Amino acid sequence: MSIRPPQPLRVTFVGVGAIGLPMAQQVAQAGHAVTGVDPSPERRTLAAEHGLVVEEIPSSAAEADAVVVMVATPDQLHAAALGEQGLLARMRQGTTLIVMSTVGPEPVRALEAPAAEHGVRLLDVPVTGGVGGAQKGALRLFASGAADVLEDSAELLGAMGTVVGCGDQVGRGQAFKAVNQLLCSVHIVAAAEALALAERLGLEQDAVLEAVSSGAAGSWMLADRGPRMLEGLDAEVRSAVGIFVKDSGMVAEIAGSLGLDAPLLHAAQAKYVEAADAGLIARDDSQVIQTYR
Amino acid sequence: MSIRPPQPLRVTFVGVGAIGLPMAQQVAQAGHAVTGVDPSPERRTLAAEHGLVVEEIPSSAAEADAVVVMVATPDQLHAAALGEQGLLARMRQGTTLIVMSTVGPEPVRALEAPAAEHGVRLLDVPVTGGVGGAQKGALRLFASGAADVLEDSAELLGAMGTVVGCGDQVGRGQAFKAVNQLLCSVHIVAAAEALALAERLGLEQDAVLEAVSSGAAGSWMLADRGPRMLEGLDAEVRSAVGIFVKDSGMVAEIAGSLGLDAPLLHAAQAKYVEAADAGLIARDDSQVIQTYR
Repeated sequence: MSIRPPQPLRVTFVGVGAIGLPMAQQVAQAGHAVTGVDPSPERRTLAAEHGLVVEEIPSSAAEADAVVVMVATPDQLHAAALGEQGLLARMRQGTTLIVMSTVGPEPVRALEAPAAEHGVRLLDVPVTGGVGGAQKGALRLFASGAADVLEDSAELLGAMGTVVGCGDQVGRGQAFKAVNQLLCSVHIVAAAEALALAERLGLEQDAVLEAVSSGAAGSWMLADRGPRMLEGLDAEVRSAVGIFVKDSGMVAEIAGSLGLDAPLLHAAQAKYVEAADAGLIARDDSQVIQTYR
Repeated sequence: MSIRPPQPLRVTFVGVGAIGLPMAQQVAQAGHAVTGVDPSPERRTLAAEHGLVVEEIPSSAAEADAVVVMVATPDQLHAAALGEQGLLARMRQGTTLIVMSTVGPEPVRALEAPAAEHGVRLLDVPVTGGVGGAQKGALRLFASGAADVLEDSAELLGAMGTVVGCGDQVGRGQAFKAVNQLLCSVHIVAAAEALALAERLGLEQDAVLEAVSSGAAGSWMLADRGPRMLEGLDAEVRSAVGIFVKDSGMVAEIAGSLGLDAPLLHAAQAKYVEAADAGLIARDDSQVIQTYR
């Protein structure tokens, strides 16, 4: 048995925002040649300071072995991928386009036919774990697509975290992520609601948090967001309220399109919208607790 | 430093139901002389088969060092404790009445004055962890009351699980438990809602459960109840739907009395009521997922 050293790849990374940049850095640290693409001069400057080659327009996609897209919305994804100046038109045949944004199943499935026309292989790999996970290369990657393409990309994806196989059809990774985000959306607001109740009961919130979080009432989000809820408005922004306005809205739309009544999700979504309306959209999502004051 | 062997105590245990019986057994196994009290002949027979002395009326309270009450409702608690034939009238001065039912703060505080009149010491120690925790002596005990009384009862309480100190005023244990039950109520329904979404998305629910439960979407309840949700209607009853109809209702009442709007709790409560109305009140609480079909 021979051990083959990982092949350095040329990777174009589209969208080096709060989470895209640390992801791209992990790929670069794994030995690949990464070019970061972003319309924002500030983000490009920051990416360059972190050692990435940067560009405003994805010219490097023409030489890339793989292109990762980590933009925020379905519209941004389609604008980046499609059209005469889009990624698919630029990319070489046989290379791989990896969608890592959370956009829901349909926007990724809509890229299947155009990718096939250009001879580009398509993967659907949304991630969870936030900025903290991205910085440590410890994201969870909900990966779907053709088995051989997933296998060829395993080392590249593994640089960013743990790959969770979700099946061989694109859209399935997004579907797993939707279920994941329903739980995350609800658990954050549940933590806020519980700590708000503790306050109304006249209890010390930190004592309650410690007492309940390691038992049957525990959740990953309670342990992670709970302490930041108690820090108040100036808590470090690890994930903004706006992300969950977007994600809970996306999951609500998916649930609605499937005829599923999802009352907990809707209640949580209303709380993120309420927080955004109160001017907290760029605050840490833990500050959804302010809506209970 | 001398090590004092634990003193065997005479303990009257009022309410040897699904969770009370295994709790009483743990106390007996720790070396104490336990008498189980229950109005139900079936429960008395079962308790006797498990080695407890049993009685219908708590006559043994007159000789008991401690009386534990593990009944279901505030009304049952007050009926057991108060009046000419009640526990406080039967108990000796200086002995301890330990309320372990989940009834909310006020019903326990209402016992403070009557207990003081009878010279009986009062502790408020609701528990979490369900039948499984009770059987293993691995409950979490939210313990409040005077520090010296708690200390005197530490060994007795420790036989049933881990004591979490909640402060020196009775009612605080119940308040901690209310926060705990808000989270438990919401997390079970969140798990149901998420797995229902997975089904509508055409995903294999067990694969999704495995993929999401160890990441940021995880909760103790998702890991515990999720697998039983997938077993369907005949899943083993570890905690009945009726328990969460009661507990979510109790927490909703407490939140309401404090002027706290708790939309997630209300949405969860409505689901337990919906499940009960659909004839599932005695089924495992995981079967709240049936309401999403």
